[in-house]
Amino acid sequence: MSFLDHINACNAWTRTDFLPWGLAGDILGWVRPAFAEQVVAASAPIDAPKTGGFTLDWLGPELRILSWHAANLDWDAREHAFARLCQQLQTQDSLPAPQGERYPVTPGRRDQARCSIDRAHAPFFGTRAFGQHLNGYVRGHDGLELWVARRAPDRRHYPNRLDNMVAGGLPHGADLRENLRKECFEEAGLSAEIADRALPVGAISYCRATRAGLKPDLMYCYDLELPAELTPVCTDGEVAAFERWPIEQVMQTVRESDEFKLNCNLVIIDFLIRHGQITPDDPDYFELVQRLRSPIP
Amino acid sequence: MSFLDHINACNAWTRTDFLPWGLAGDILGWVRPAFAEQVVAASAPIDAPKTGGFTLDWLGPELRILSWHAANLDWDAREHAFARLCQQLQTQDSLPAPQGERYPVTPGRRDQARCSIDRAHAPFFGTRAFGQHLNGYVRGHDGLELWVARRAPDRRHYPNRLDNMVAGGLPHGADLRENLRKECFEEAGLSAEIADRALPVGAISYCRATRAGLKPDLMYCYDLELPAELTPVCTDGEVAAFERWPIEQVMQTVRESDEFKLNCNLVIIDFLIRHGQITPDDPDYFELVQRLRSPIP
Repeated sequence: MSFLDHINACNAWTRTDFLPWGLAGDILGWVRPAFAEQVVAASAPIDAPKTGGFTLDWLGPELRILSWHAANLDWDAREHAFARLCQQLQTQDSLPAPQGERYPVTPGRRDQARCSIDRAHAPFFGTRAFGQHLNGYVRGHDGLELWVARRAPDRRHYPNRLDNMVAGGLPHGADLRENLRKECFEEAGLSAEIADRALPVGAISYCRATRAGLKPDLMYCYDLELPAELTPVCTDGEVAAFERWPIEQVMQTVRESDEFKLNCNLVIIDFLIRHGQITPDDPDYFELVQRLRSPIP
Repeated sequence: MSFLDHINACNAWTRTDFLPWGLAGDILGWVRPAFAEQVVAASAPIDAPKTGGFTLDWLGPELRILSWHAANLDWDAREHAFARLCQQLQTQDSLPAPQGERYPVTPGRRDQARCSIDRAHAPFFGTRAFGQHLNGYVRGHDGLELWVARRAPDRRHYPNRLDNMVAGGLPHGADLRENLRKECFEEAGLSAEIADRALPVGAISYCRATRAGLKPDLMYCYDLELPAELTPVCTDGEVAAFERWPIEQVMQTVRESDEFKLNCNLVIIDFLIRHGQITPDDPDYFELVQRLRSPIP
């Protein structure tokens, strides 16, 4: 186990297992071929340009793309066509039940969304997911200490595993500052005044294949220096307990175990580099710095 | 002018203008085709495997590589063969006079060097150059202030332009900490005790074509928080004056001008991101974070 192993684990996917899908020349995501065929069948491609249907087209030998014929539709019509498609795919069990949180469907930035998608459906369509991760830390007498969250045992994803103090997805259209306040309150019981002290310090990106599909993630990273007397309290049940660890213990746990939720390792590695804990004497230093921001397909 | 423009300027090169050169399957650098032919002519390729000669080989249609036949030579013999070649190229004016500082010739990390090369010759062979850049800053009453260096008017490169407080190349085999001490003393008159407070905070990379050849650079970045009463003093003539600027003035100067030496812009953009001065509300945020670490060929 090494720092690089965690980066590799977050970047495990094979391009040939997926087809791009797009709209008017822009790639919006990546789908498994079998799912692409279900999309085409479910989207009623007759008179596709008017109804926002999908077709599977050959771009070249061995190179197919799932095309969404919605370039002539306005935002509302695209939303409507895409929602109808997802509902049909749910009905036939090709998509799970929605989570009720909307994510952007975008070829690039959050503000370039072409429509929105339910969070639970995003990996099936391999759309970019944006999020915010925050490391809460204290400058103790003996050096840095990091607040670590133990996830609740009833969580669907990664029960009992370690987590960053605050971490959450960024819904479509959400304001960065307001969403961070919301997450800081829900996950750690922090006031808006404390949350607003969080410093944006960069971003990480990675792309991973899961059973559902593809997860290209872009995460904004924040540092929040906390007073020694403050203890975070979870208000939404996601976290079972908070612990304050010396930075050396955090570093060792990340380097030598799988205790942390997969992507949290990367957020902490970035923290360790920026705070001079992982030093340029580490032979993997440059590779770590570069690969924390893997190109998103 | 924008932050991204500076990153683009540091990454301006065309792959087809260069040929790779390598040793036993490893790529050590990139050379212009005309220079490659001069190397072959100067290296006396007769019985190349014994003498460490060079040949130009076809890897495929339109794909040539300059091969160094030195796999069977030990370090000393490789150094000797490469030095002899460079001397011959100097004699015929294909290389400039040496600077007397040795850089590693490596397919990857500094500690994987296959031989060494004079700093002045590195761009001609397109070998990776490693360096250290340090931002000296003060936490003032009104926010962050950055020490900015004005380069001396008699400098060969970038006279009168702005620079990071301390910046220098990393010679082959140099210890990171000791080299930083040396640069901190020469360029800013800092004691070893102050220099040792510098925090390694990451790295940037970029690759640029120049008249000489190709410059793939990997720079270790350091932050050094300084007491308000300390004023840096140049001891080696590289810097004409030091000024302490409010961070907003630094940010504006980087964003809107070419006042800073080319690569210093990138080191400062990284500083601005890590210190929450460039925020995720900047539409280019992710692209900046990613492209500050451009893949090195």
